[in-house]
Amino acid sequence: MQNHRFAVLTLALACLLPRLASAATPYRSAQQILDASPDSDWRTPDPANLLYMNLPAGRVIIELAPAFAPQHVGNIQTLAHEHFWDGESIYRAQDNFVVQFGDADADDAAKAKALGSAKRKLPAEFQRDSKGLTVSLLPDRDGWADQTGFVDGFPVGQDRKDGKTWLAHCYGALGAGRNNEEDSSIGAELYVVTGQSPRQLDRNITVVGRVLQGMELLSALPRGPAPMGFYADPAQRTAIQSIQRASDVPAAERPRLQVLRTDSRTFADATEARRNRVDDFYKRPAGHIDLCNIPVPVR
Amino acid sequence: MQNHRFAVLTLALACLLPRLASAATPYRSAQQILDASPDSDWRTPDPANLLYMNLPAGRVIIELAPAFAPQHVGNIQTLAHEHFWDGESIYRAQDNFVVQFGDADADDAAKAKALGSAKRKLPAEFQRDSKGLTVSLLPDRDGWADQTGFVDGFPVGQDRKDGKTWLAHCYGALGAGRNNEEDSSIGAELYVVTGQSPRQLDRNITVVGRVLQGMELLSALPRGPAPMGFYADPAQRTAIQSIQRASDVPAAERPRLQVLRTDSRTFADATEARRNRVDDFYKRPAGHIDLCNIPVPVR
Repeated sequence: MQNHRFAVLTLALACLLPRLASAATPYRSAQQILDASPDSDWRTPDPANLLYMNLPAGRVIIELAPAFAPQHVGNIQTLAHEHFWDGESIYRAQDNFVVQFGDADADDAAKAKALGSAKRKLPAEFQRDSKGLTVSLLPDRDGWADQTGFVDGFPVGQDRKDGKTWLAHCYGALGAGRNNEEDSSIGAELYVVTGQSPRQLDRNITVVGRVLQGMELLSALPRGPAPMGFYADPAQRTAIQSIQRASDVPAAERPRLQVLRTDSRTFADATEARRNRVDDFYKRPAGHIDLCNIPVPVR
Repeated sequence: MQNHRFAVLTLALACLLPRLASAATPYRSAQQILDASPDSDWRTPDPANLLYMNLPAGRVIIELAPAFAPQHVGNIQTLAHEHFWDGESIYRAQDNFVVQFGDADADDAAKAKALGSAKRKLPAEFQRDSKGLTVSLLPDRDGWADQTGFVDGFPVGQDRKDGKTWLAHCYGALGAGRNNEEDSSIGAELYVVTGQSPRQLDRNITVVGRVLQGMELLSALPRGPAPMGFYADPAQRTAIQSIQRASDVPAAERPRLQVLRTDSRTFADATEARRNRVDDFYKRPAGHIDLCNIPVPVR
């Protein structure tokens, strides 16, 4: 009998079983490329831009993107510093879409949590000028954007004609919920993408960062009832013990964490290895990779 | 204060708040189009091709695709009829990728469950001739395939040059795990896509069907340890009470379920409404939709 237990196991381990692409340039899997990476290809995120979301089941670590949403990031930093989310909850989990968290009573003036010194109004930050950004571009075509790539670890879309760049709604993206008015988000109610990348939201909502670690604490939450996923019973919500800025936590208590530089040779090579998998498992390398199928390694 | 609670709520409800695209052709949301659909645009799947996967938390309903993987589907029907999976388990949940189920002891000859009258060897069924298929094509460009569309409710990729069509690895796709040999799957060990569509697997593995209902029972399972997601402790596995063919269940006990015909005007119009959302929420309609972002409605 075939060893079926390892069928899909093999699939993912395939990258550990390289075969020679040619005698001159042996294929290396993404994992092998990562294992051989120099330390200089890794960066330590600025603790001012890291959030620790502490849940009963563990910690989610988020990196904010001030280069794309400076005003929202500033407000989020204020809210975290002033303990806005401590004792609040994840009150929505919609299958194949998002989890959403913040103050479940925000729409009830009598119960809403005070926003402290955070701003009550911010401009929309859906996109920014491409000028001043160094984008590691992908050669792959994309249906949603003129071109795509990465900026400092964040997947982005870019339009050459209008000179704009924006954070893409890939798995793990953190966005600021809003009402119909485009300037109606302030970063107090946030969502994380847990499903197939909903890139129709790109340039329609302010993306403020992405989850670096702990996605499985969000993605495996029991779904709320369809279609929207808001829990019917408040008891089903997941308590947020606290959301802290890493820079508010003593340095000795911060987990050590590094992110692969997306402008590194290692990242480019690992992405190419995923684009064209040459191993014993894959019979037909795709010759393509989608922006949202590229993991940004964290160690 | 902004009504932040409803920020992302609005996002999804936006389709219920249409505005006129023009006086002559008012925009209708996908939901409005579905609500107005004639009964003739819906089909009742053949119970011979439906599986009920009964879990402690509820039922997952799967539609098999004999037009694409006739031999695998035949074997799966035999295995279900002979109760192969009853008492087996979901033994793997890898975040942003797949859940996998079947006989966790399949690789241990002493413990492996007997395969009964199922075949021990099948040919790979990665793709099929396009001839004889009616594909409802999408106009949207795709990085993974020459063109994409739907056949009888299943998302497909297609290559005009080599005349082949294949089932795409979108959310909810059911695939047959295999070893390195392309003909090493028999449909006993199966996986369901729960993460960002891993379309690099297209044409590398036999896809046998898709989940119609109950995805949230699979997608919200606690993840096993990285990198592969196999549970370290067998007690963490999710028991499969049974997997039944609907046709083995008395007709009166089968849930009534219909799937929107993907060759219907309703499906085409709803997809167009998602491609270009014209409502109070969206500021910039995408003008594009990805194959794996198109839901196939079930009622």
